[in-house]
Amino acid sequence: MLYEVSEERLEEKLKIFSKIGATSKGGITRLALSSEDIKARKELVSRGKQLGMEVKTDDMGNIYALLPGEKKGVSAISMGSHMDSVLRGGNYDGILGVLSALEVIETVVKEKIKHTHPLMLIDWTNEEGARFDPSMMSSGVITGHLDYEKMLQSKDTKGITFGEELKKSGYQGTSENRLLNDDVATYTELHIEQGPKLEDENKKIGVVQGVMGMVNYEITLTGLKAHAGTYPMEKRKDALLAATQVIYDLNKKLATINPTLVYTIGRFNVDPNIHTIVPGKVTFTLDARHEDPQVINQVVKIIENLPTNFNGVELKYKRLWSRKTVLFDKKLVNGTEKITKDLGLTYKKMYSGAGHDAQYVATVMPANMIFVPSVNGLSHTETEKTKIEDCWNGANVLLNSVLYYDSIL
Amino acid sequence: MLYEVSEERLEEKLKIFSKIGATSKGGITRLALSSEDIKARKELVSRGKQLGMEVKTDDMGNIYALLPGEKKGVSAISMGSHMDSVLRGGNYDGILGVLSALEVIETVVKEKIKHTHPLMLIDWTNEEGARFDPSMMSSGVITGHLDYEKMLQSKDTKGITFGEELKKSGYQGTSENRLLNDDVATYTELHIEQGPKLEDENKKIGVVQGVMGMVNYEITLTGLKAHAGTYPMEKRKDALLAATQVIYDLNKKLATINPTLVYTIGRFNVDPNIHTIVPGKVTFTLDARHEDPQVINQVVKIIENLPTNFNGVELKYKRLWSRKTVLFDKKLVNGTEKITKDLGLTYKKMYSGAGHDAQYVATVMPANMIFVPSVNGLSHTETEKTKIEDCWNGANVLLNSVLYYDSIL
Repeated sequence: MLYEVSEERLEEKLKIFSKIGATSKGGITRLALSSEDIKARKELVSRGKQLGMEVKTDDMGNIYALLPGEKKGVSAISMGSHMDSVLRGGNYDGILGVLSALEVIETVVKEKIKHTHPLMLIDWTNEEGARFDPSMMSSGVITGHLDYEKMLQSKDTKGITFGEELKKSGYQGTSENRLLNDDVATYTELHIEQGPKLEDENKKIGVVQGVMGMVNYEITLTGLKAHAGTYPMEKRKDALLAATQVIYDLNKKLATINPTLVYTIGRFNVDPNIHTIVPGKVTFTLDARHEDPQVINQVVKIIENLPTNFNGVELKYKRLWSRKTVLFDKKLVNGTEKITKDLGLTYKKMYSGAGHDAQYVATVMPANMIFVPSVNGLSHTETEKTKIEDCWNGANVLLNSVLYYDSIL
Repeated sequence: MLYEVSEERLEEKLKIFSKIGATSKGGITRLALSSEDIKARKELVSRGKQLGMEVKTDDMGNIYALLPGEKKGVSAISMGSHMDSVLRGGNYDGILGVLSALEVIETVVKEKIKHTHPLMLIDWTNEEGARFDPSMMSSGVITGHLDYEKMLQSKDTKGITFGEELKKSGYQGTSENRLLNDDVATYTELHIEQGPKLEDENKKIGVVQGVMGMVNYEITLTGLKAHAGTYPMEKRKDALLAATQVIYDLNKKLATINPTLVYTIGRFNVDPNIHTIVPGKVTFTLDARHEDPQVINQVVKIIENLPTNFNGVELKYKRLWSRKTVLFDKKLVNGTEKITKDLGLTYKKMYSGAGHDAQYVATVMPANMIFVPSVNGLSHTETEKTKIEDCWNGANVLLNSVLYYDSIL
């Protein structure tokens, strides 16, 4: 049997939360643990309690709201995402996953849908990392990927630490409340795609199989700073001309590896960056992502075999970080695919190019994600949008997926 | 008859002034109108007066020191340069021209060398523009190229205006004292080359024929900011990849125009310059210099005929500024060439790629320059150096040039 959430109620939720941190241009600024984030947390907890949920928080401020199931002593089926945003972000990234989960629970409660396992809603603290570096901080800590004490020391631009702000927030619980495998069986996160693939292929749902692996390198070219007017061309060691040559060559090689490989030179800094001085040094980053580790290995080989000298300009590279491809749980992915088909929705099996809390959770328990289309593929901007019918479709896939998981676990 | 300045006295002068604003690494920080600049001015004026010179300043703080000649009512033969430096600059740029002129006058006085015309020493205020933008400010104002009132409003990084600081300095005279064509017949500036050509060709003197013309463009590429992980390559409008393509193409074309053309992409800014975001915008500058206007015209044509669209990334260019080649006075240049030969010194006829006060002065009266070699072609750095024998050679060319001008005018 298939169920439907209320589109009206979902739309009301999105509308109410879009006012908490609203920008003048229709977007949102709801940085982690800001007064806006606290306000959103209060609203969420209040709504959860009204639905009969028990709410607790762990020592990272992650919120867990639990709706009991018919059976006692069994582990929960969890859903969630994050409510923090980037500076001048949009009204769907993160918040849609939290509010869809809330609407799923509201539907279950109001329509008295039977379920064996408890249902859990999770709000992760500081997913964006926009105020306190790094991103996915709190799911990272409780799954053992990031260090708790170090994270407490992370500072915002005003010098306030995450630890101080967390303490002040009133949402810091104890470490005993952290998500534990015994308490929770599965985690499913609904999220906007943040890319244009679903829209371009006219698909309603992204059945997410995992999160792409990635490498991030910093490449430095060191030449010789010189006067733009007096230093002859043939004697120059121009770090910028060398950098453009390196990027031109890299681009040619990387473009042929694999059609779905994405690579980005996002940061590019010139020293001294003065119009009348030949650049002595250029530093740029190269980010490459793909689900197939062999594709990433080819990128690594190309970077690590770059010539170390371009007409006297010295090249050095440094791996800033990398992550392996995270594969989501097959049973959950297949369950969501089945449900999506049953609901008659078009879908695309795909990998996430962006990072999400689900990728950390997936390392300790079965987890998966559901994507809905982003208008024009945009996110992290005030014009970020997902049509209400697409939000509703996604929430329906989430509702029926968790009920399906409930039936097979 | 040929004369010689005293190498010992010249070295003493360079040593004394190298202490006024000395940095720990052997360089100098003597920003315009700073306490160090004031101290240097006091020392200069005191030494000039001891040699029997009459000193006055104009409304830009330029210092003019005059040694009378045998004939009254004739215009002066002037020499000079500047005493201000960049931040952590060297002990030769500017100051060598002033101190060589002072040593020339000391030689004339001590050896009682007869001269018909008065000899004038000039110290230009704020040539570097390192504290108050723009460079060559005061020669620019008194020759009508820059606006007096606007220049008074130029601020340093602390918000202090040039006007305030000039008033406080005690060196602000009246506009009646500005260099006037009637009072002065010629201007000759000795300066370090700031490039490696003389050293590389093993020449002792640069006989400077003029200052290269230049153009400076700002090129902007506007694409689409996008997520590094979720946005497919084929849909991207990557401003940075487009910029590297443009620079790669430009470099290929510009490299073939003329062997002595110099061009520099010195400033390159990326927006938003974040490693996980595909750049939406890149702005870079292109500075090109050559003495032949036809060569510069070819550069202009190449820039102004760049495609306006690179796979959806839009290209726009804007000319930030340009200057025409300034040709120095032939009679003066030929005179200096003759003197250099007479002194038995090797020389190169050349154009200056850097800007100098002499280029503004040349627009109102006969002017020229003399270059001496820069060790490793370096300037604007604490390790800037010209060997004492090269300084001495340069001062001898200056001394005998002005005496030669005195004889032919």
